[in-house]
Amino acid sequence: MTNASPTSARFASSVHRQRLARASKAASEQGLDALLITPSPDYAYLLGYRAPAMERLTCLVVPADGDASLVLPRLEEPLARHELGDLADDLEIIAWDETGDPIRLVQTLVGSPLRVAVQDQMWARFALRLRAALDPAEMVAAGHAMSALRAIKTPDEIDRLRSAASAADTAMLAITGERLSGRTEQEVSGRIRELLIDAGHDEAGFAIVASGPNSASPHHVADDRRIEAGDSIVLDIGGTVGGYASDTSRTAFVGEPPAEFAALFAVLVEAQRAACEAVRPGVPAASIDAVARDIISEAGYGDAFIHRTGHGIGMETHEDPYIVSSNPEPLVAGNAFSIEPGIYIPDTWGARIEDIVICTESGGERLNTTSTELNIVE
Amino acid sequence: MTNASPTSARFASSVHRQRLARASKAASEQGLDALLITPSPDYAYLLGYRAPAMERLTCLVVPADGDASLVLPRLEEPLARHELGDLADDLEIIAWDETGDPIRLVQTLVGSPLRVAVQDQMWARFALRLRAALDPAEMVAAGHAMSALRAIKTPDEIDRLRSAASAADTAMLAITGERLSGRTEQEVSGRIRELLIDAGHDEAGFAIVASGPNSASPHHVADDRRIEAGDSIVLDIGGTVGGYASDTSRTAFVGEPPAEFAALFAVLVEAQRAACEAVRPGVPAASIDAVARDIISEAGYGDAFIHRTGHGIGMETHEDPYIVSSNPEPLVAGNAFSIEPGIYIPDTWGARIEDIVICTESGGERLNTTSTELNIVE
Repeated sequence: MTNASPTSARFASSVHRQRLARASKAASEQGLDALLITPSPDYAYLLGYRAPAMERLTCLVVPADGDASLVLPRLEEPLARHELGDLADDLEIIAWDETGDPIRLVQTLVGSPLRVAVQDQMWARFALRLRAALDPAEMVAAGHAMSALRAIKTPDEIDRLRSAASAADTAMLAITGERLSGRTEQEVSGRIRELLIDAGHDEAGFAIVASGPNSASPHHVADDRRIEAGDSIVLDIGGTVGGYASDTSRTAFVGEPPAEFAALFAVLVEAQRAACEAVRPGVPAASIDAVARDIISEAGYGDAFIHRTGHGIGMETHEDPYIVSSNPEPLVAGNAFSIEPGIYIPDTWGARIEDIVICTESGGERLNTTSTELNIVE
Repeated sequence: MTNASPTSARFASSVHRQRLARASKAASEQGLDALLITPSPDYAYLLGYRAPAMERLTCLVVPADGDASLVLPRLEEPLARHELGDLADDLEIIAWDETGDPIRLVQTLVGSPLRVAVQDQMWARFALRLRAALDPAEMVAAGHAMSALRAIKTPDEIDRLRSAASAADTAMLAITGERLSGRTEQEVSGRIRELLIDAGHDEAGFAIVASGPNSASPHHVADDRRIEAGDSIVLDIGGTVGGYASDTSRTAFVGEPPAEFAALFAVLVEAQRAACEAVRPGVPAASIDAVARDIISEAGYGDAFIHRTGHGIGMETHEDPYIVSSNPEPLVAGNAFSIEPGIYIPDTWGARIEDIVICTESGGERLNTTSTELNIVE
């Protein structure tokens, strides 16, 4: 057997009660008869505890009209009631036995819907069975309905994001103050994980250390390459604090960088700064991407900026809103997202700068406060 | 950004080449035009590296006829090529840019199929979009085709499971030799995680510590309850070694157990032993469940055994074959699974014993070798 993660994103039951009511309202507004939410960040957002996604179906049914129900395996019921506390009084909890048919239970709860939405990350094995059981209902992904709730953070959520960013900054300051040359990427990555925990993270989620030519691979996995003089090093680190994610990137250089790298990096600093400053309610996400991309392209590095400018952040490290040229949605106050342009020259070097930014009524607020300048290290 | 997990389940490229060929053959045998495999244990099984399941689609396309292709975001391409090594030569690798349409790329690769299978854990958001793009093709879950490959372990895989089981046994022996009373469940759980790593696990996956009345909740999450005299304690621990999982449960008691608990536990030992001894090729999985369940039921605890007897294990802690009354499939040599009956008396106490067992031509081989008797602890 395996167990669930400890509760880490809990607010008062009244908060989760409001979230369930808002989810029901969002379903109604989007012409959905019900939301079907399996264990995932959406599930934790609504119910306040993280259940593992497993081969046994757990499914929260949020109807557009009426009270929510929770279908779950009988052996998960004690844990669920323990974690839910008095929120359990608001739910009909229906436990199924090992040989039971949970798909049938969900079907009975939703009746004969015209249109239902399933949680974006629901396992296909469940989505396909639910689709067959609910035929001819239309089945869509719940992403839009859920992100309408989750993409606007409350002050309490922003506090947690701020705590997480601050903890990541502490770890970043510590690692960029250490000697890095002579150590392998894996060693430095392991050290960063320690620093993330020491700084107050509940868990160290990731610690990208991409050195020398590896820094040209945005999602490089730290390996046994030994860092040496003349290396650029992309550090991209994060974890969770109180169920909310941190994510920050800085670039270091072992010794003084050649003029060519310094020139590239100056463009990146400017692009990242300008994109942060462009943040305010009403500006389309695509425009923020364009601000960074235009500066990088005009300097001749357009083909080397091979990813979007950023992603929303909250209970997930990547969530809505995405800061990408294909997203015309206007930013709204309460949005939280990364701004992280990068420039990558294959087989040579790369650089990235990443801050988490909150869209406030008066503009963008950077939660990360370390300098974005190049960190010269030994 | 976040990064992928380090490679941990890699075999020689020739092994993965064979696995891809077998997957293609399995698709053909099951009347499927293609398997669509997103990052998951199936993906790691076939390609030898773990990619994260993300909002950007990565999809391995394994046609029943022809070579496999890998559709992935451009920024993941350097990592994928690095991890794939010379296996990359066997794949058509198609990278898409941030504003590209990966669903369309997959559609182009599979053409106009009659029937495709999607990886069981594929996110619903992708499965629903693929389904619409491939309409009117029938879409099914790939579970059956993939488990036909993965459920029969090779000697190399069994070696890794044996190493994992041995490491878990080392940790279990250590924790049951320590004083547990006076410590909280969380403290003991944290200690077990250290012991799992010390014993050679790459990562500590879980460490259930369920004491006193909490031991009646099979998936209890360790909390701040302090262990005291007269407690039963269910310890259920595991992690991974070389990409393969360990999972073992033992029960401890603080001080001498009352006669009532001793009687219950004697039934459990007998049920677990008998189920292990019943393992051999050709026996239906349901029969193994029945062996344990009948003994427990005849002793009057039938209603207190609220879960199946076991689950397959390999790259995932839970995978096929499931040892449950609804599974008539016969065991075959090379199957690896847990045998873990439990007895749970609500609000009072509970007990579980779990071993990983390999079905060999000559019967069941227990990989866990610690005593299944009750551990009397201080």
